[in-house]
Amino acid sequence: MITLYGCYRSRATRPLWLLAETGTPFTHVPVIQSYRLNQPKAPDAPLNTASPEFLAVNPIGQIPVLVDGALTLSESLAITMYLARRYGGALGPASDAESALMEQWSLFAATAVEGPALDIRMTLDKGMKTAEAEAFVAISAEKLRRPLGYLAGALKEDWLVGGRFTVGDLNVAECVRYAAAHGALMDEFPAVKAWLARAQARPAFQKMWAAREAEPL
Amino acid sequence: MITLYGCYRSRATRPLWLLAETGTPFTHVPVIQSYRLNQPKAPDAPLNTASPEFLAVNPIGQIPVLVDGALTLSESLAITMYLARRYGGALGPASDAESALMEQWSLFAATAVEGPALDIRMTLDKGMKTAEAEAFVAISAEKLRRPLGYLAGALKEDWLVGGRFTVGDLNVAECVRYAAAHGALMDEFPAVKAWLARAQARPAFQKMWAAREAEPL
Repeated sequence: MITLYGCYRSRATRPLWLLAETGTPFTHVPVIQSYRLNQPKAPDAPLNTASPEFLAVNPIGQIPVLVDGALTLSESLAITMYLARRYGGALGPASDAESALMEQWSLFAATAVEGPALDIRMTLDKGMKTAEAEAFVAISAEKLRRPLGYLAGALKEDWLVGGRFTVGDLNVAECVRYAAAHGALMDEFPAVKAWLARAQARPAFQKMWAAREAEPL
Repeated sequence: MITLYGCYRSRATRPLWLLAETGTPFTHVPVIQSYRLNQPKAPDAPLNTASPEFLAVNPIGQIPVLVDGALTLSESLAITMYLARRYGGALGPASDAESALMEQWSLFAATAVEGPALDIRMTLDKGMKTAEAEAFVAISAEKLRRPLGYLAGALKEDWLVGGRFTVGDLNVAECVRYAAAHGALMDEFPAVKAWLARAQARPAFQKMWAAREAEPL
């Protein structure tokens, strides 16, 4: 049996979306980030990322983590790749070349998109209206223009790899999602905006997102 | 025939090391970074990352890029994974679980190690002795203590995956290498320092490194 550690309001959204795509049965242990213990409405979770029981599973104290038999795996984008390859059928690679392209897009998302996109999301979520906050969002958006332009150029078809929705799209979409809070930026890249909407219209994303929204902040 | 684009003084060291491990024949196109055109001793390269001919290969203008038949691949850590899987025998994964762990370690290296390690390397390379430069190196080193401690904990055996040297070690070693310029930091993690020395003692690394050192700055 697969066990996935990590609450919905974390990068566990990625494997949770993938598991909703495949319908694979799994045990969910909704470990929360330790900093959320101090928040008034933290979910009633059995473990947090500083719990000794969780650190025994993942010594770096990060969620999500997957355990599948003898395999313990961290890094959300590697977990989705594994689940797709092992249980995902057409969501995973059909050849070494597809495997390589899915890894390429996952590394691109992690290194060129996720950092500045998360900076935008967290700053906008705080609702800060200061000049400093606005400048920080503007600089983060500027960092994203080259990667988003590159992504737009790669989206000549509906999906990134193999002419079908795959874990490659899922991994990139989950990083681009943070930037979607910046509507004007997304409007500059209509191909990216339309692709993200296609990905998020999938029933599995919708199911995952509803569960995430139901989790206390 | 494989074609690899990218000079030695770039992230092309990663696939060049891997190709030295496997001995696979390839065509090398030593594309240089466009900013080096203004340096006095730039290598005499046929193309740079702003050349239209290179942008036709990789629109985001980054090296390295691999072309193998119909596949064009960017992201250095995905290129090494592909080469190992396709041509590397025991350097690549022998199972879905090994594939996942190599992807996990590659993503870990790219997201938790490479940024601050490169900050250390570039600051020390400039030889700056200002208080600001020293503070920046100290902050970057502090960012690396948690990931390097985690890596040290994972090095109970000589290598990270499957009890043998693999592309997982190569990808992480190439990111940790930037931090090795900070001797005192590495001394805090003897297991990491010894593992990096083992990896870099391999004849294929030595061959790649000699070619890199021979390339003009």
